Amino acid sequence: MKIDENMSVLDLVKEMDAAGVFCAGRLARALDIFVEMVSDPDTTVFLGLAGALVPAGLGQIFADLIQEDFVDVIVSTGANITHDLIEAFGGQHQKGIEGDDTDLRRRGINRIYDVYVSDGAFMEFEDKIQQIFRDIDVEKRREGIAVYELINEIGKRLKDKKSFVKVAADKGVPIFCPAITDSILGLQAWLFSQLNPLKINILEDLHQIINLAYESKKSGAIILGGGVPKNHILQTMLITGKGFDYAIQITLDRPESGGLSGATLDEARSWGKLKSNAKSVDLIADVTVAFPILVAAAKQKLKEL
Amino acid sequence: MKIDENMSVLDLVKEMDAAGVFCAGRLARALDIFVEMVSDPDTTVFLGLAGALVPAGLGQIFADLIQEDFVDVIVSTGANITHDLIEAFGGQHQKGIEGDDTDLRRRGINRIYDVYVSDGAFMEFEDKIQQIFRDIDVEKRREGIAVYELINEIGKRLKDKKSFVKVAADKGVPIFCPAITDSILGLQAWLFSQLNPLKINILEDLHQIINLAYESKKSGAIILGGGVPKNHILQTMLITGKGFDYAIQITLDRPESGGLSGATLDEARSWGKLKSNAKSVDLIADVTVAFPILVAAAKQKLKEL
Amino acid sequence: MKIDENMSVLDLVKEMDAAGVFCAGRLARALDIFVEMVSDPDTTVFLGLAGALVPAGLGQIFADLIQEDFVDVIVSTGANITHDLIEAFGGQHQKGIEGDDTDLRRRGINRIYDVYVSDGAFMEFEDKIQQIFRDIDVEKRREGIAVYELINEIGKRLKDKKSFVKVAADKGVPIFCPAITDSILGLQAWLFSQLNPLKINILEDLHQIINLAYESKKSGAIILGGGVPKNHILQTMLITGKGFDYAIQITLDRPESGGLSGATLDEARSWGKLKSNAKSVDLIADVTVAFPILVAAAKQKLKEL
Amino acid sequence: MKIDENMSVLDLVKEMDAAGVFCAGRLARALDIFVEMVSDPDTTVFLGLAGALVPAGLGQIFADLIQEDFVDVIVSTGANITHDLIEAFGGQHQKGIEGDDTDLRRRGINRIYDVYVSDGAFMEFEDKIQQIFRDIDVEKRREGIAVYELINEIGKRLKDKKSFVKVAADKGVPIFCPAITDSILGLQAWLFSQLNPLKINILEDLHQIINLAYESKKSGAIILGGGVPKNHILQTMLITGKGFDYAIQITLDRPESGGLSGATLDEARSWGKLKSNAKSVDLIADVTVAFPILVAAAKQKLKEL
Repeated sequence: MKIDENMSVLDLVKEMDAAGVFCAGRLARALDIFVEMVSDPDTTVFLGLAGALVPAGLGQIFADLIQEDFVDVIVSTGANITHDLIEAFGGQHQKGIEGDDTDLRRRGINRIYDVYVSDGAFMEFEDKIQQIFRDIDVEKRREGIAVYELINEIGKRLKDKKSFVKVAADKGVPIFCPAITDSILGLQAWLFSQLNPLKINILEDLHQIINLAYESKKSGAIILGGGVPKNHILQTMLITGKGFDYAIQITLDRPESGGLSGATLDEARSWGKLKSNAKSVDLIADVTVAFPILVAAAKQKLKEL
Repeated sequence: MKIDENMSVLDLVKEMDAAGVFCAGRLARALDIFVEMVSDPDTTVFLGLAGALVPAGLGQIFADLIQEDFVDVIVSTGANITHDLIEAFGGQHQKGIEGDDTDLRRRGINRIYDVYVSDGAFMEFEDKIQQIFRDIDVEKRREGIAVYELINEIGKRLKDKKSFVKVAADKGVPIFCPAITDSILGLQAWLFSQLNPLKINILEDLHQIINLAYESKKSGAIILGGGVPKNHILQTMLITGKGFDYAIQITLDRPESGGLSGATLDEARSWGKLKSNAKSVDLIADVTVAFPILVAAAKQKLKEL
Repeated sequence: MKIDENMSVLDLVKEMDAAGVFCAGRLARALDIFVEMVSDPDTTVFLGLAGALVPAGLGQIFADLIQEDFVDVIVSTGANITHDLIEAFGGQHQKGIEGDDTDLRRRGINRIYDVYVSDGAFMEFEDKIQQIFRDIDVEKRREGIAVYELINEIGKRLKDKKSFVKVAADKGVPIFCPAITDSILGLQAWLFSQLNPLKINILEDLHQIINLAYESKKSGAIILGGGVPKNHILQTMLITGKGFDYAIQITLDRPESGGLSGATLDEARSWGKLKSNAKSVDLIADVTVAFPILVAAAKQKLKEL
Repeated sequence: MKIDENMSVLDLVKEMDAAGVFCAGRLARALDIFVEMVSDPDTTVFLGLAGALVPAGLGQIFADLIQEDFVDVIVSTGANITHDLIEAFGGQHQKGIEGDDTDLRRRGINRIYDVYVSDGAFMEFEDKIQQIFRDIDVEKRREGIAVYELINEIGKRLKDKKSFVKVAADKGVPIFCPAITDSILGLQAWLFSQLNPLKINILEDLHQIINLAYESKKSGAIILGGGVPKNHILQTMLITGKGFDYAIQITLDRPESGGLSGATLDEARSWGKLKSNAKSVDLIADVTVAFPILVAAAKQKLKEL
C-alpha cells in the first residue's frame, strides 16, 4: 500500500485491494461485492442491523442507503429502531459523560459503552410512541398488526429526515424486527396493550419476508453484527430453497464459540442459505469503522461507473 | 495454584479462587455467586441460552438444572429449542464429518461449526412438530397462544428425559423465546399457520415474564452467550424497576464493539437492570468449557453445605 | 454432557470428550495429546510461556511439571521469569487493590490487569538480582554468557521450591528467553553491565536449543499464549527440518489478524514446523482456566494408566 | 455520520469524529494524537511493529513515514525485518494460492494467513544475507555488534526504496529488534556465526534505546500489535522515569487475558510508562485497515495545517 496526502476513501480501498490480503484485502473484496449487488436492479438487497449502530452514529448512513435505493429490506434489532425513534422524537445520544455506572444510575443516565441516554429521553419516547400507537387505526390494532406494518405506521408519522425508520416508510422499504418484544419499543407496545386493543401478528411478518425472498430474482445480504438479524436474513433464503447470490458480513464475533453470530458465511453454504457459487466475504472488523469506509468507497465507485 | 492427581472439579476451582485473579479468579467468583443464588429459595433464577449450546452437548445440563430446581425461568433462542426437539424426536447431532461446505450441501448435511445435522433430521423434525401443532387445542390456537405456552404444549408431548424442553414442561418452568420466528421452529409454526388456525401472542409472553419478575423477592441471572436472551432477561428487571440481585454472564463477545452482547454487567447497573449492590461477574470464557466446570463445582459445593 | 456432584476433573473432561465438539471437544482432544506426549520417554517436550502467567498464579504448576519430568525445555518471556524471581525473593503479587491507574502510580503500585505489584517488590528484586549477577563467575560474564546459562545461574541460587526457575535449574531443564532485554530482568542485566563485566551471547542460546531439537527422537510443543515463545519453539523445528510430532496451543488470539500469535497450528504445517501427520489442537481459551484443567486431568489419567 | 460520494479519507474521519463514540470515535481521537505528536519537532516518536505487517503490504507505509520524518525510532519483530528484506532481495509475498497446509508444504510454499512465500524466496534471502554478513567489517563482527547496528549495516546495502530497513538506514533512524534470534534473520545470523566471526551485543541495543529516551524532550509511541515491540517501547520510558507524552495502540488483543499485548494504555500509567496526563487511545481494530486510514488522514491534515 502506498498512502499519500490527497486520497479519497476509494483511493485508499484501491490500495488495500492491491495488497489484497488480511483484513484490508477483505475490505476491498467487500467493496466489489457491495457495488455489484447494489448496482444490479434484479438483486433484492437485505440489510441486517445488530449492535448499537444507531447510538454509534450510523443511523443516517442507513437512511441515506434506503433513500438512494441501495437497500430493499431491513431486518433490525428492536434497539436500533428504538434509538432511531428517540432521536426522531428529539432525544439525544450524548458523549463524554463521566462517572461510574452506579453514579450514572443516580443521575438518571443510561450507558451504552461510551454513549449516554437520559431517563428523560426515554420518557419523551414513551409520550410520543404511546400517542402514535393511539393514532393507528383501532381495527387494524384489534385484528392483529404485523411488526413491519407497525414500524411503517410509526415511520409515516415521523418528520426527522435523518431517521431510517421514516425514510424506510417513505420509500416503502419494510423493516422487520423479529424480536420486537425484546426492546424498549416492544415494552411500550405491551404497556399500550394493557389498556388498549393491540395484537401483534408475527407470523404475518414471516410470511411477508419469505414472499419477498420468493419473488426476488437475485438476492444479496449485508449483515452488520450477528444476532437475530443475521440469522433471520439467512433463514429466509433457507426456506425458499434459493440461497443468496451475494453476502457480506462485518463482525468481531468469533467462529470458534460455535454460535451463529460469529459463524463464517461458508458455514451458511452447507445449509443452502448461500448459493454454492455465491460471492461472499467475512470481514472481521468493527462495524463503526469498516461500514462507513465501505459506503463511502462504494458511493464514489458507483458514481464513476 | 497447586494441581495434583486427585482433584475434584471443586478442588480445582478452589485453587483458582486462591489465586483469585484473571479469568480463573472470575470463574471462582462466579461459583460463589452461582451457589448463593441457586441455594436461596427466595431468589428467582433466570437462565439465558444463546449460541449453539444444545448442539454443543450442554442440553442435558440444562435439563438437570431444571429438574433439580436450580432454575425458575428460561429465555432461549429458537435454535436451542429446535435442536433440543431434534434430539427428542430421535435426530442426531453428529461429529467428525469431513468435506467443505459445498460438498456438505450436496450431501444434505448442515454444519454448525464442527457439529453436523442431516436434512433428514430436519424432515423428521417437521413431521413430528406439525403433528404436535395439530394436537394442540384448536381454540387455543385460534385465539392466540403465547410462545411460552406453545413450548410448554410441545414439552408436555415429549418423552426424552434429556430434553430440557420436556423437563421444563414437567416442572412448570416457563421457556420464553422472544424471537421464535427467527428459528426453524418458528418457520414450522408459520408453515402450519398457512393451512391451520394458529396465532401467536407475543405480548402475552412479555406480560408473563414481567409478572414473574414483579413477583420475585430476589432475582438472579445466569446469562450464557449474549443476544436476545441476555437483553430480554435484563430488560425484564428494567421495567419492574427492581434490578437483579445476582448476575453471571459467560461470553467471548467484546465490550468494545458497543453492542449489548459483549457489554459488561456494570453497564447494566447504569440502566438499573442490576441493583447497584448486585453481586455480578463477567466471565470472558467459552461457555462449553466454563459452564460445565461451574455446574460441577456448584453441585459438589451445594452437597457439602 | 452429564454433570454430577462427585466429579473429578478427569470425569469432567471425559464428559467433554463424549460431546466431542466446540471448545470443550478441543479441550478433551488436548488432553489426549498432552498425555501421549508427556508419557512417551522418547519425546522432547517444549513448553512456551507467554502472557502474565506467573502473576496469574500458574507458576507452581510449571514448577511441578518440571519436577515431575513432564517438560524438557522451556521458552519464556522475560516477564514470567522476572515475576517468578520476584516471588522467590519474597515479593508479592497482590489482588483486590482499588483505585485508578493514576492513583496507583501515586501510591507506587504497578498493575497487571487485576494483579498488583509494589515498587518495593521491584527494589527488592533489584537488590537480590544484582547480588546474584555479582556472584556469577567473572570470567564467564566477561567472555559472554548465554541467556539460558544466566537463568540457570540465577535458578541455582534460589531457595523457593515453588519457583519454576529454581526447579528448572535443579532438574537441568534449560529456560530459553530470546527477548531477555525486553523485561525488567534484562534491564537489570544492562544496569549491571554498566559498571561490571557482563556480555550476553544470544547466538549460543540459539545453538543450544537447535541442538536439543536435532537430538530429539520425537518432539512435542505445549504453547501457552503466542508471542516470542510460540514462534521460537516452532522455528526450532523449522531449522532442523524435522517438524513437531505433537502440538497444543492455548490462546484467545485470533487468526484473522494474520500475526503468528493467533495463527493456527495447521499454518505451521505449511512451514514444516509441524509434521504433516502431527497430532495438534488449537484451543481457543483462556490459559488460566484451560491449562489447570488440562494438567489436573492429565495427572489423574497418567496415574490411572 | 454522513457519507457522500466525494469524500477524502480525512473527510471520513471527520465524520467519525463528529459521532465521537465507539471504535470510530477512537479512530478520530487517534488521528488528533498522531498529528499532534508527529508535528511537534520536540517529540521523539517510537513506532512498534508486531504481527505480519510487511506481508500484509504495510511496509511501504513505514518506509514513507521514516522518509518524511514522522518516526524517530523503530522497534520491530524479526519477522517484519526478514520479510522486508525478502522483498528487497526480489522475493515475493503472493496471494490467492489454494490448497491445504500439507499440500502447500509438499509444494514448498509457506503460509502466513492468506499470504504465501516460497521456499525459493527464503533460499534467495539466505544467499543475499550471508553475503551481506560477510561484507560487514570483521573487526566489528568479532568484538560484538548491536542488533540495531547490524540492521543498519544491512539497510545501507539495500537498493529497494520501498524497504523500510533501507530508508531507516538512509535516514539514520535506528531499528531495534530485541528478539532478533526469534526470526529467520536471527537463524541466518546464527548459521553465519558457525563458520565466521559474529557476536551480537544486545545490551548495547538496550543502552542505545534508553539513551534515546533519556535525550528526548517529549516522546510518543505508536504501537501496532502487541508483543515484544509494545513492551520494549513502554519499558524504555519506565527506566528513564519520564513516561510517554503520547501513545496510540492498535490491536485486536483482549485485555481480559491479562497479558501485556492486550493491556490498556491506562495500565501503563500505573507503571509510569505513560505520564499521568499523557494523551492516549486504545484502538481495538485490525491494523491493516485502521493504520492506513490513520496515515492517509494524518497526511492530509498535516498538509492543511
